[in-house]
Amino acid sequence: MIILPPDLGERWYSVFMSTFDDDFQPERFAQRYPLLSRINSPADLKLLPMDRLEELAEEIRKVIIEVAAHNGGHLASPLGAVELAIALHYVYDFSQDFLVWDVGHQAHAHKILTGRRDRFHLQRRKGGLSGYPTRSEDPVFDAFGTGHCGTSISAALGMVTAADLTPGNERRAVCVIGDGAMTAGIAFEALSNLGAMKKHVLVILNDNEMSISKNVGALSTYLSRLLTGGAYNRAKGDIKSFLENTLGNRLFEKARRVEHQLKGMIVPGMFFEEIGVRYIGPIDGNCLPTLVECLQNLRDIKKPLLFHCMTTKGKGYPYAEVDPLTYHGVGPYEISTGQMRGKSGPSAATFTDAFAEALIEAAREDGRIVGITAAMPTGTGLAKFGEVFPDRFFDVGICEQHAVTFAAGLATQGMKPVAAIYSTFLQRGYDQLIHDVCLQNLHVVFAIDRAGLVGEDSPTQQGAFDVSFTRAIPNIKVLAARDNIDLRQMLRWALQQDGPVALRYARDRGPAIGPEDGRDVTRGQVLREGRDACFLSIGPIAAKCLLAAEALEEFGLSVGVADARFVKPLDPDLLESLSALPMITVEENTLEGGFGSAVLEHFEALGQLSEVRIKRVGVPDRFLPHATRAEQLEDAGLSVPALIEAARSFVPLPEIKSV
Amino acid sequence: MIILPPDLGERWYSVFMSTFDDDFQPERFAQRYPLLSRINSPADLKLLPMDRLEELAEEIRKVIIEVAAHNGGHLASPLGAVELAIALHYVYDFSQDFLVWDVGHQAHAHKILTGRRDRFHLQRRKGGLSGYPTRSEDPVFDAFGTGHCGTSISAALGMVTAADLTPGNERRAVCVIGDGAMTAGIAFEALSNLGAMKKHVLVILNDNEMSISKNVGALSTYLSRLLTGGAYNRAKGDIKSFLENTLGNRLFEKARRVEHQLKGMIVPGMFFEEIGVRYIGPIDGNCLPTLVECLQNLRDIKKPLLFHCMTTKGKGYPYAEVDPLTYHGVGPYEISTGQMRGKSGPSAATFTDAFAEALIEAAREDGRIVGITAAMPTGTGLAKFGEVFPDRFFDVGICEQHAVTFAAGLATQGMKPVAAIYSTFLQRGYDQLIHDVCLQNLHVVFAIDRAGLVGEDSPTQQGAFDVSFTRAIPNIKVLAARDNIDLRQMLRWALQQDGPVALRYARDRGPAIGPEDGRDVTRGQVLREGRDACFLSIGPIAAKCLLAAEALEEFGLSVGVADARFVKPLDPDLLESLSALPMITVEENTLEGGFGSAVLEHFEALGQLSEVRIKRVGVPDRFLPHATRAEQLEDAGLSVPALIEAARSFVPLPEIKSV
Repeated sequence: MIILPPDLGERWYSVFMSTFDDDFQPERFAQRYPLLSRINSPADLKLLPMDRLEELAEEIRKVIIEVAAHNGGHLASPLGAVELAIALHYVYDFSQDFLVWDVGHQAHAHKILTGRRDRFHLQRRKGGLSGYPTRSEDPVFDAFGTGHCGTSISAALGMVTAADLTPGNERRAVCVIGDGAMTAGIAFEALSNLGAMKKHVLVILNDNEMSISKNVGALSTYLSRLLTGGAYNRAKGDIKSFLENTLGNRLFEKARRVEHQLKGMIVPGMFFEEIGVRYIGPIDGNCLPTLVECLQNLRDIKKPLLFHCMTTKGKGYPYAEVDPLTYHGVGPYEISTGQMRGKSGPSAATFTDAFAEALIEAAREDGRIVGITAAMPTGTGLAKFGEVFPDRFFDVGICEQHAVTFAAGLATQGMKPVAAIYSTFLQRGYDQLIHDVCLQNLHVVFAIDRAGLVGEDSPTQQGAFDVSFTRAIPNIKVLAARDNIDLRQMLRWALQQDGPVALRYARDRGPAIGPEDGRDVTRGQVLREGRDACFLSIGPIAAKCLLAAEALEEFGLSVGVADARFVKPLDPDLLESLSALPMITVEENTLEGGFGSAVLEHFEALGQLSEVRIKRVGVPDRFLPHATRAEQLEDAGLSVPALIEAARSFVPLPEIKSV
Repeated sequence: MIILPPDLGERWYSVFMSTFDDDFQPERFAQRYPLLSRINSPADLKLLPMDRLEELAEEIRKVIIEVAAHNGGHLASPLGAVELAIALHYVYDFSQDFLVWDVGHQAHAHKILTGRRDRFHLQRRKGGLSGYPTRSEDPVFDAFGTGHCGTSISAALGMVTAADLTPGNERRAVCVIGDGAMTAGIAFEALSNLGAMKKHVLVILNDNEMSISKNVGALSTYLSRLLTGGAYNRAKGDIKSFLENTLGNRLFEKARRVEHQLKGMIVPGMFFEEIGVRYIGPIDGNCLPTLVECLQNLRDIKKPLLFHCMTTKGKGYPYAEVDPLTYHGVGPYEISTGQMRGKSGPSAATFTDAFAEALIEAAREDGRIVGITAAMPTGTGLAKFGEVFPDRFFDVGICEQHAVTFAAGLATQGMKPVAAIYSTFLQRGYDQLIHDVCLQNLHVVFAIDRAGLVGEDSPTQQGAFDVSFTRAIPNIKVLAARDNIDLRQMLRWALQQDGPVALRYARDRGPAIGPEDGRDVTRGQVLREGRDACFLSIGPIAAKCLLAAEALEEFGLSVGVADARFVKPLDPDLLESLSALPMITVEENTLEGGFGSAVLEHFEALGQLSEVRIKRVGVPDRFLPHATRAEQLEDAGLSVPALIEAARSFVPLPEIKSV
């Protein structure tokens, strides 16, 4: 049973609504957040006495909880990092020094403290603040944009190296990286290079023992051992007395029995020390006095340091503390009950749900099917698979590179690995996809979730490139599901193939488009006949094509709709059957080298390019800012009105009808 | 001064010629390699007494030296790993257990011992053995193909996991990974996951303290410390007596002064132990009795082990031992003198040379230019830059992911980073290219060396995808140099831009194509006028287009040649000026989403597709096997005769001329 603090309840939420729901109301804000309302910049923060900082943390925490309740977004991580943000800006001057928040979704307090307090409630909305640090939003305080795991150390090292190359321009760099992100290969590459270059970079390990889901991998086990071992090596600790006192008595005895434990306890942080990065910690990362004191001590040590801070994910919001996984990223919710809103009533399952169910069903019949995720068991739906088949479920950590090659290894031995990876994260495993899977023509099925536009998250998370980068590779088959029915059947089909298959689907619900009966997912499908032109689509955008086609009747145009299903290889019969009509290809992928280009290539290879008429519609060649999925589709020219306009401008109105 | 062993000289080489130059001669082979000629399989090897193994190693080494002298290829690495291959096959049965050679170019002895002895002299030739382990060559003994660094642990873990899922099918896995490859992020991801999964995998760290060039990064410093520290922790060492004896006396005293050194010495291999992998070593990896004994001891320990073996790169060939960098990969050479053959007489510089010179020149004028390589200082030519500007040269290790984000960090502070990365290795940094560089529109110049077909190396090293995968990304400019003159000017231009630029060039010499005067690399260039059709190419393939155009005169066809220079953005004026003619696009990149597709997209976007005639020529949609670059171009349909045929079949002979 969760006990709410006295001020957390319906009353809180109602105040929040009046504070934020309209334009920013400075008076109301000041009434509710008396201290925070006076902090307009980090300079104001520095003027506060130490003993007011916790009060400030409480106010910031309230803002985060209230805004997330309204807008949705990341919740548990930013709550855990409030004290870190305050302490960092209290001790450092990041208009001079560099601060990089790894992944970035924990940087909410940082945004509130760096002049964006009054716009914070518009976060994740179109035109509002991004949910991630973004250079275009603030090139000084958001010195490096983030979104994917593990990039912060590389970026910070680059920035401080640049400063060192300019005489008299010495700067410090700090990056804040979670324990999950630390398992990403790039973080290790950067840490090792940092240790060798000996630059003035402080790596703060923000360790909540969670990452997004429960951490996996030996590194996180190691971090846990550091905490439970009891041997705290303080920043200013004396190695000599530490060794004599500790080894001489208690530990040495223990060593006879527990060799492994001994090793981990002799000097905590050996893992980091061994590659040239001084380890300090662990300390309580939600304790402001400790944090400030440590940072003051560490700030001017001109060498690579790793400062291990334990934080509580969801800190200050009881529901999130108890269940940080559910409250990692939320939709709008009721503060007093923790209940997510807008989830009432039945509606179609998401593609992710359909995928998980179909995979479980297939795996019941075929013991060779195994599931792999890179630290996204919930997001990909594979957690459900793992509950049914714990021995055939592998969460390898935030390690897409390893995930792909691990799958290849499994496939060489006759297993049927299904690697469920978001489109944006598969970019991390691109070399392994080419080099280990496709070159060896191994039967790995890639379930590419979040393919296409992803909505309120940052452009860093966009899935707009996978059609282009997968179809460039020999041997792979690439297809897209327009609805849950197709997704299930396509997954079954993919599991029966010989070589690699990439199956993409959207971050959306997947209600049926067309009847279930008589589907054959091994080829394209005409969903609506047309006499004047035809939309040729992949994925769920088929639904919008159908609506547009219906509306085009009003203009006297008879426009068909066909779902190509396959990007590679294309269905030649479908294309031939449509080739007499003007064709409009429609896709949720960049137009550069995407599905539409594959259609152009098809007719070029047949020497029929001058005999067909093709127009391509898809994601334009720019990074789309955050907004709702519907707004992004509109921005991309993929809304129903835009499709209608595309058809009208491309297809001449039939003469007889235009009269 | 290098002293040759008595039997290493002109005599040796002449024998070699008669042994290998023609079809395999069993009698001659048996005469020269009496022991090796009786080893037809690993089963034969197991029958040898221990004391004959060193003799066998000597014979295998001779074969490797002699074949490399004739064919070229990797030399120093395979020489260092001869004993490892013998000991592994002596102790294990890899028709049952799994063996994965990381990178794979050190696996020559393994190939010779596994039934490929009689074809070994045809290695790297068209139709002959690959220089790398290749599943299509031997799916049992080359259980997993390799080429890029750091994949072996992931693959081995996948294989042994698959075996564990089949009851009664328990298998062991061994991977052999170099100290350089160990710095790749994927190796760390896999090692950490291995430690957590606790599978029966033996990771042999083949440490020659070199990788390809001198190792960089803190991990390699750490490995060196292990060696120099003097505290060897043998496989069967007793931790208790080790600690009491060592810590009690010498080390403890030392600790008062040398804190850091102490930590590394307490238990060697702590870095690995901390993430759950038991460390054993270091031992002399060129000592067969030690190797065999250790492997026999380790073989049945059912947990993750890291076995640290020191080997000498170039072992047994004095020139290669002294200068393993030069003899890492060689062209044909004289065994007696070590001199490379076929390098006499002046000829055009390679693209790599031209790049290095142009970069140095530009850097003299602009202090913001810095150079970054991922462990390929010699291959990319950046070593020369580093000699002139040591403070502005960064070799970050085999870490393409980190290299790209590090460059992004430098760029945020006004530096002008030039990241010189082979096309095939840039695949490793694809996510960082999108997420850190292009999304933030940072001015990083990617010098994409080895773009296109790379010749005798394995298909793993092919640079056939970069045009497709780079041009899919917003903000980036993508261009290709046809010759050294263009490369120099393009690099200067790229350094003056605002956002990311990818400049691709071939693994080839870059003699001038067309006069130097009057070039403007900011737009395409017509190299030859034509009335009937036009080749529209990117890169050095323009030279073949010119030859084809000349030959086509004989058929009465007047075919022009234009170098598009830009893939993204295309030069619209050039395309418009050519659009009245049939156009044949020609590129050394896959046809899937490549340059030719960009040209199709261009005319589609203008609504002119039905008014133009375009045929695309490029690398077909399959992985091309190893062969010479000329053979591969022929295989790809990019030879002069193929281009002639492409034009003849596409362009109708002018009626008046065909009479």
